[in-house]
Amino acid sequence: MKTHCLKLQPLTKEAFTPFGEVIQTQGRRPVEINYGQTRKYADLARIDVGDEEGAATVHIYRSRPITLPFRIEVMEYHPLGSQAFIPLSRQPFLVIVAPVAETLPFESIQGFLTNGKQGVNLNQAVWHHYQLSLEKTCDYLVIERSGPGGNAIEQRLKKSLLIEEFS
Amino acid sequence: MKTHCLKLQPLTKEAFTPFGEVIQTQGRRPVEINYGQTRKYADLARIDVGDEEGAATVHIYRSRPITLPFRIEVMEYHPLGSQAFIPLSRQPFLVIVAPVAETLPFESIQGFLTNGKQGVNLNQAVWHHYQLSLEKTCDYLVIERSGPGGNAIEQRLKKSLLIEEFS
Repeated sequence: MKTHCLKLQPLTKEAFTPFGEVIQTQGRRPVEINYGQTRKYADLARIDVGDEEGAATVHIYRSRPITLPFRIEVMEYHPLGSQAFIPLSRQPFLVIVAPVAETLPFESIQGFLTNGKQGVNLNQAVWHHYQLSLEKTCDYLVIERSGPGGNAIEQRLKKSLLIEEFS
Repeated sequence: MKTHCLKLQPLTKEAFTPFGEVIQTQGRRPVEINYGQTRKYADLARIDVGDEEGAATVHIYRSRPITLPFRIEVMEYHPLGSQAFIPLSRQPFLVIVAPVAETLPFESIQGFLTNGKQGVNLNQAVWHHYQLSLEKTCDYLVIERSGPGGNAIEQRLKKSLLIEEFS
């Protein structure tokens, strides 16, 4: 079986638009609140979890690091809600995604590397790989949907796809 | 005017129960997900924002530090939704709260110091002081209600209340 390689790109708002939002202060204009003590960067993520009587819930994920090269074997999506990951350890992490589609569009899988301060909010039904830490175990705040109904679809890749070490 | 002093206490789940939830992994049992790569500490905060067609939104607050002693002059509450603060800088911060009441119950104001890893989720309508960082400017992820209706009540203290330096 031929092995395909996934090229990583830096996470930017523009490149990530088809998949969701980059949660970051960079490029955003804050407003001053709290008598000048606080700069508020408002509405950085659209928490879209209301379908079928869903509500927002908050988890912490503690994810062990992977080592590169890493084989992508399975991807998933959540048909009923958005899902946000915000790093609590200021470490870069990987975001592997593909556009909304009934079956996983292998040729459209993209890999992003965060800058350590960025979080992401995946749109409803965007294909993604599970949480991938690099170098050390990291904690992430996760904001997602809680509620009735099946909200996880998983698919195993039919071709071999490898994330290579950074060049 | 006589000056009252607010004694700070370490933030614990038990002591904070009347006001909301402590967002932390400590004392929680995780479940393994993502093929054993991730420990999930589930449902750490009840995001209670649905009243009057509200939805959850996410901000980042960048808060300048205060210096102690610090005079508490004003407190506020949000009648329509919970409000969560999760530190992105792993620095302790102050949480000044008072129980739900129509007018601020001065005698019941309590001050908590986090351990640097803890966040808090304030219940709907709990009186609180605005975000208070210590030592350096820190970022916080804020999860709160967005939607129609007035959701901020503020009250100026009629007595003098001071947070003293740590002894």
